[in-house]
Amino acid sequence: MKKITSLLFATAMLLSIGAWAQEKAVNPSEFHGAVADKKSYKVVYQLNSDDDKIIKATMKNIMNALEDPRLKGKLQAELVVHGGGVAVFKKTNSYESQLKALQAKGVILAECANTLRERNISKDELFDFISFVPSGNGEIIIRQQQGWAIVHP
Amino acid sequence: MKKITSLLFATAMLLSIGAWAQEKAVNPSEFHGAVADKKSYKVVYQLNSDDDKIIKATMKNIMNALEDPRLKGKLQAELVVHGGGVAVFKKTNSYESQLKALQAKGVILAECANTLRERNISKDELFDFISFVPSGNGEIIIRQQQGWAIVHP
Amino acid sequence: MKKITSLLFATAMLLSIGAWAQEKAVNPSEFHGAVADKKSYKVVYQLNSDDDKIIKATMKNIMNALEDPRLKGKLQAELVVHGGGVAVFKKTNSYESQLKALQAKGVILAECANTLRERNISKDELFDFISFVPSGNGEIIIRQQQGWAIVHP
Repeated sequence: MKKITSLLFATAMLLSIGAWAQEKAVNPSEFHGAVADKKSYKVVYQLNSDDDKIIKATMKNIMNALEDPRLKGKLQAELVVHGGGVAVFKKTNSYESQLKALQAKGVILAECANTLRERNISKDELFDFISFVPSGNGEIIIRQQQGWAIVHP
Repeated sequence: MKKITSLLFATAMLLSIGAWAQEKAVNPSEFHGAVADKKSYKVVYQLNSDDDKIIKATMKNIMNALEDPRLKGKLQAELVVHGGGVAVFKKTNSYESQLKALQAKGVILAECANTLRERNISKDELFDFISFVPSGNGEIIIRQQQGWAIVHP
Repeated sequence: MKKITSLLFATAMLLSIGAWAQEKAVNPSEFHGAVADKKSYKVVYQLNSDDDKIIKATMKNIMNALEDPRLKGKLQAELVVHGGGVAVFKKTNSYESQLKALQAKGVILAECANTLRERNISKDELFDFISFVPSGNGEIIIRQQQGWAIVHP
């Protein structure tokens, strides 16, 4: 008898957890919003802050966009870094693994050369797997005029 | 005599207030800037902060855009909320009336489902008149690639 | 002998400084990023903060974009100011020379008239060489829908 009670209790637990999870999560059938009917999408992300929270949020945001079921396998992204954002590319900081994970998904990692000159930063202080653009602002503008979206988290 | 003096004084007061108001306000004839010659306009607003000032400014900005004489009756807007911005949709917060005023003007209210999962927030904690998108970042990107403008206040 | 030693020392110094400068700077041949093959580019910059650092960064960003070798002589920019950003246009503040330098390069300086009304600011408190738009948000939206890029530093 005790066994049956235990079993019933466990089943009730499982059912209630299931119900809780279902109520908690948003069911994909409830999703609304834009329909992605194009073959490919392009976006430039702007990072100009040395705030650790913003740096991490920006990298997570790019990953979320790449993993969005509507965009998966169809999105080309570029991270354009200028001003204080250069922190994300410094060897002495701890963002290497997240950056490499993004690069493995095709994300272009671009540093503003103006920022290096203005802040007297040597490119040797930065990861060697990044690329450089004359100005981050110019890059953002040209990309948009080529049809890329812009996100500044 | 005293009556006439009072009357003159009151008139002078009114005239000077009128002059002051006129000098103070920008006369519509002084407006420059873009000419809106399209039939319809579309914009997505990004909100990813839980800062009360930014939340209120974002909602006010949308309202100002909807009321801009150049856009009035021609603008479709969507508020895309992700990250900390989810605060605006929480039942325990006090933004319900402003949100409903925006919705009454056709503004789409969209919450990022990723944020709920990452922050362990149940959709029951949020107003029931909002809608959900798989990721806020994906939504912003797709909308822009469909020709919508983006504003991040 | 001492003379020769000094000369050798000075030469070694110069060479090492040269090498250091070369290593430090990003060589233009190392630039990657977007190619600017259009005849003209247009961008609207959004400023809605009274933070001195953000105000200065925004003006420097515009200048950097105008000076980007890819965009030089081909970029039309507009600075749209709303909310707290109105600080940049106040006569009592110290941004006049930078603003005039931007204006000399063709940058349109546009203040949101809504902000003046909401904050009870007289246009007489602002520099007389700026222009006004009914709403900064409307301006940003219309410009984007006319094909301008947007940057919010």
